[in-house]
Amino acid sequence: MTYRASYIAELVGGRLVGEDVEVSSIRGYHEAGPDDITFVLDASLLSKPTDAKVVIAPDGVEGVEGKSLILVKNPLEAAVVVANLFYREEFGEGISERAVVYPGAKISEGVVIREFAVVEDGVELGRNVVVMPYVYIGRDSVIGDGTVLFPGVVIYPGTVVGKRCRIHAGAVIGADGFGYFEKSGKRIKIPQIGRVVIGDDVEIGANTCIDRATFGETVIGDGTKIDNLVQIGHNVKVGRDCAFAGQVGISGSVVVGDRVLMGGQAGIADHAVIGSDVKVAAKAGVFGRVRDGEAIVGAPAMPAPRWKRIQAIINRLPEMYQLFKRLKRRG
Amino acid sequence: MTYRASYIAELVGGRLVGEDVEVSSIRGYHEAGPDDITFVLDASLLSKPTDAKVVIAPDGVEGVEGKSLILVKNPLEAAVVVANLFYREEFGEGISERAVVYPGAKISEGVVIREFAVVEDGVELGRNVVVMPYVYIGRDSVIGDGTVLFPGVVIYPGTVVGKRCRIHAGAVIGADGFGYFEKSGKRIKIPQIGRVVIGDDVEIGANTCIDRATFGETVIGDGTKIDNLVQIGHNVKVGRDCAFAGQVGISGSVVVGDRVLMGGQAGIADHAVIGSDVKVAAKAGVFGRVRDGEAIVGAPAMPAPRWKRIQAIINRLPEMYQLFKRLKRRG
Amino acid sequence: MTYRASYIAELVGGRLVGEDVEVSSIRGYHEAGPDDITFVLDASLLSKPTDAKVVIAPDGVEGVEGKSLILVKNPLEAAVVVANLFYREEFGEGISERAVVYPGAKISEGVVIREFAVVEDGVELGRNVVVMPYVYIGRDSVIGDGTVLFPGVVIYPGTVVGKRCRIHAGAVIGADGFGYFEKSGKRIKIPQIGRVVIGDDVEIGANTCIDRATFGETVIGDGTKIDNLVQIGHNVKVGRDCAFAGQVGISGSVVVGDRVLMGGQAGIADHAVIGSDVKVAAKAGVFGRVRDGEAIVGAPAMPAPRWKRIQAIINRLPEMYQLFKRLKRRG
Repeated sequence: MTYRASYIAELVGGRLVGEDVEVSSIRGYHEAGPDDITFVLDASLLSKPTDAKVVIAPDGVEGVEGKSLILVKNPLEAAVVVANLFYREEFGEGISERAVVYPGAKISEGVVIREFAVVEDGVELGRNVVVMPYVYIGRDSVIGDGTVLFPGVVIYPGTVVGKRCRIHAGAVIGADGFGYFEKSGKRIKIPQIGRVVIGDDVEIGANTCIDRATFGETVIGDGTKIDNLVQIGHNVKVGRDCAFAGQVGISGSVVVGDRVLMGGQAGIADHAVIGSDVKVAAKAGVFGRVRDGEAIVGAPAMPAPRWKRIQAIINRLPEMYQLFKRLKRRG
Repeated sequence: MTYRASYIAELVGGRLVGEDVEVSSIRGYHEAGPDDITFVLDASLLSKPTDAKVVIAPDGVEGVEGKSLILVKNPLEAAVVVANLFYREEFGEGISERAVVYPGAKISEGVVIREFAVVEDGVELGRNVVVMPYVYIGRDSVIGDGTVLFPGVVIYPGTVVGKRCRIHAGAVIGADGFGYFEKSGKRIKIPQIGRVVIGDDVEIGANTCIDRATFGETVIGDGTKIDNLVQIGHNVKVGRDCAFAGQVGISGSVVVGDRVLMGGQAGIADHAVIGSDVKVAAKAGVFGRVRDGEAIVGAPAMPAPRWKRIQAIINRLPEMYQLFKRLKRRG
Repeated sequence: MTYRASYIAELVGGRLVGEDVEVSSIRGYHEAGPDDITFVLDASLLSKPTDAKVVIAPDGVEGVEGKSLILVKNPLEAAVVVANLFYREEFGEGISERAVVYPGAKISEGVVIREFAVVEDGVELGRNVVVMPYVYIGRDSVIGDGTVLFPGVVIYPGTVVGKRCRIHAGAVIGADGFGYFEKSGKRIKIPQIGRVVIGDDVEIGANTCIDRATFGETVIGDGTKIDNLVQIGHNVKVGRDCAFAGQVGISGSVVVGDRVLMGGQAGIADHAVIGSDVKVAAKAGVFGRVRDGEAIVGAPAMPAPRWKRIQAIINRLPEMYQLFKRLKRRG
């Protein structure tokens, strides 16, 4: 499928400068070929070569020899619109005869259930839900309209997933929390009889694990995005519109506010309480309470300005140590 | 199913104070509804409101207006008994016609094999083993009585799993260890021909990986509990009754004693030797030898008291640096 | 199957000293039984007891009472040859009737497709590719000759995998990169329309995730070995013959040279550029640029000699602090 530059300019609310050529795909600036449209966030990149015929660029940019430009206020936003134009995921259609859907499951209109999926009794699938191969949906779980479960996702019994979620391959939702009590040196299992409740518009990365609550609920708020290989323990409550990068670990009973960002491999100790709009740096180790709006760094984590200060001094420790030795000799 | 408070009191060896009402579920103190039983570990929580009709509380607590109390020595232990009363996992029954069980496999009485499981030749499944969908059991593996393999577990050939284990969704037991030798800048694979041997009463979290030994065995001792997304390398020997939190990483050939606790994201370098009753803090990085009973913190890890001391000084570095600058100026 | 010591000596280009006995397996020095062959890398180990009848040892070693020795230049390399003699993986044969292969897929000679695999339209499988149960191969993916996909591997659409790769159970190749832009406090998804391209002779560990590029390609070079539970973000470019240990995390758009080694749980921040022949220590946190050949340690990472220097001083902080307090009192 190809589209004319003028059609795309109109679609993204931009202004076409140059020839009204056709493009068949969108690619990155350096990788684009002659049939591609590409984009720059910053006008200065335009001085470097690209093979793309058409470039989406920020308003105010001047024409470039031999290229058609589409000038917009926000090139990234426009690029997303164009990407969605060219790229359509295909999941297949209907309910495969090779899937197993137990009779007590309620299946809405437009649902896709692929080969070798298992949908247990009491499950409710909303409209247009996509269940790819090897997806297991345990009893009495509810999956909201338009949610896509990629291959190999495992949903333990009693889980609730909202609308328009994307749960990537191998993610496990609702496995037992890690709860034991000690009795004469043995660990006795505390049955994990709570559940997981996931809001709308949540994306969950490949092989990420979100444990069911001991009693009550583990909750992920609307709009929160979670990367691959993230661990979220039992009874954790995460607010709305957060983003957690790869390999983040959140221990049991942690409370996280709204719009919290966590860098890769950050870890949150159990029972910590993180306010809203907090930024947790990659690899940070967080304990206790973090106030709204703070940016924290390090393990143990501290406010970013303090961390930078201390880190700068650590870098000068060799120099301090020289003085220390001299002073010590003097006694 | 509902139970009378008097029945529950007798079951947990407690004393009922108040009306002999019926309850239908157990939930956390703040989440409980009017048909629930709940529990408090600490009597002071009773001053806060709950909708639960019945509360399990520690001996010595006085009656609470409008609530029935069940007084016991250990409320958590009683709550576990009650949770097991209300919560019964259902795995299905019998051997599905949609599973593949090779003729050379030995299947004991009471085994459940669900749709799309694959049990290879030479496998032995003990009594009442549960094999959920998409579980793959490689040749000549042995699974002990009462063990549950949740959906998507992969057992590589030749693995031995003990009795009453729970292996959660997506866990991979017995994949190749990470072993190569270098030859002219290339890495040549050392075939990993050992196996994994897991004791009795072991729980293994979702998407956790335990690698087979190069030669010989990777061993997990009886009663050890392992959380989600944990990595255990080839030839590791773990003792009894340990507990490893989420995202712990144990490199090849590490030896771990009994009753060792590891916090989330802790990492153990290859060939380290960890004694018994050691406590490894979250995010610690451990090298070399750790003596029995030590608590270690930090990366590189050190004994907890020393770590606290040094951390306290690091927090005073800005102040030390001021003095350093003044002294330096003086020369 | 048993082999004579003389046959093995010839196979590995070594010299047999002692009786020409038969052995039936290879095991580690301490675990070996009387029918086994074993090996030592270092002659001094020979003073310790082993039950093995035959020992592969380095040239120059003298005879050991009651053992047959096979003397070679490189005992590890010889042991690998012997291990490959005794150990043959069995994957089954042919294309299972219980697998689903869409008509548009191209299947070469010698391919094994096991039960419950799904091969979508447009996929190309090279000669002797092995597709184990629950492997999902998305549309238009290409898998090179001799590659083995272990149970539960998920290949998203459009992925390219080279020849002779081994991708272990539960690995997910080509899931969406973690890319969003913010608009009034919400995160809007940037469609991830690029792909993953994996070279020849790559090994990928269990439950490891390699994300597709936003636009363009995520690339893993020939001969690179990746351990379990590793996260590789979108648009990452990794060179040849690298080795990444368990739980390494590489953020989006990172560039890694050739022959780079990364220790367990190391993390690389987005857009970092790592030269060739770099050694990244376990748990390191890497930002910015790292020059060819550097060894880096710590979080934030620094050159190893500098890190050792600073770490040594941190260990003397208590002593420095004593002096600091004394000097401060003096004013």
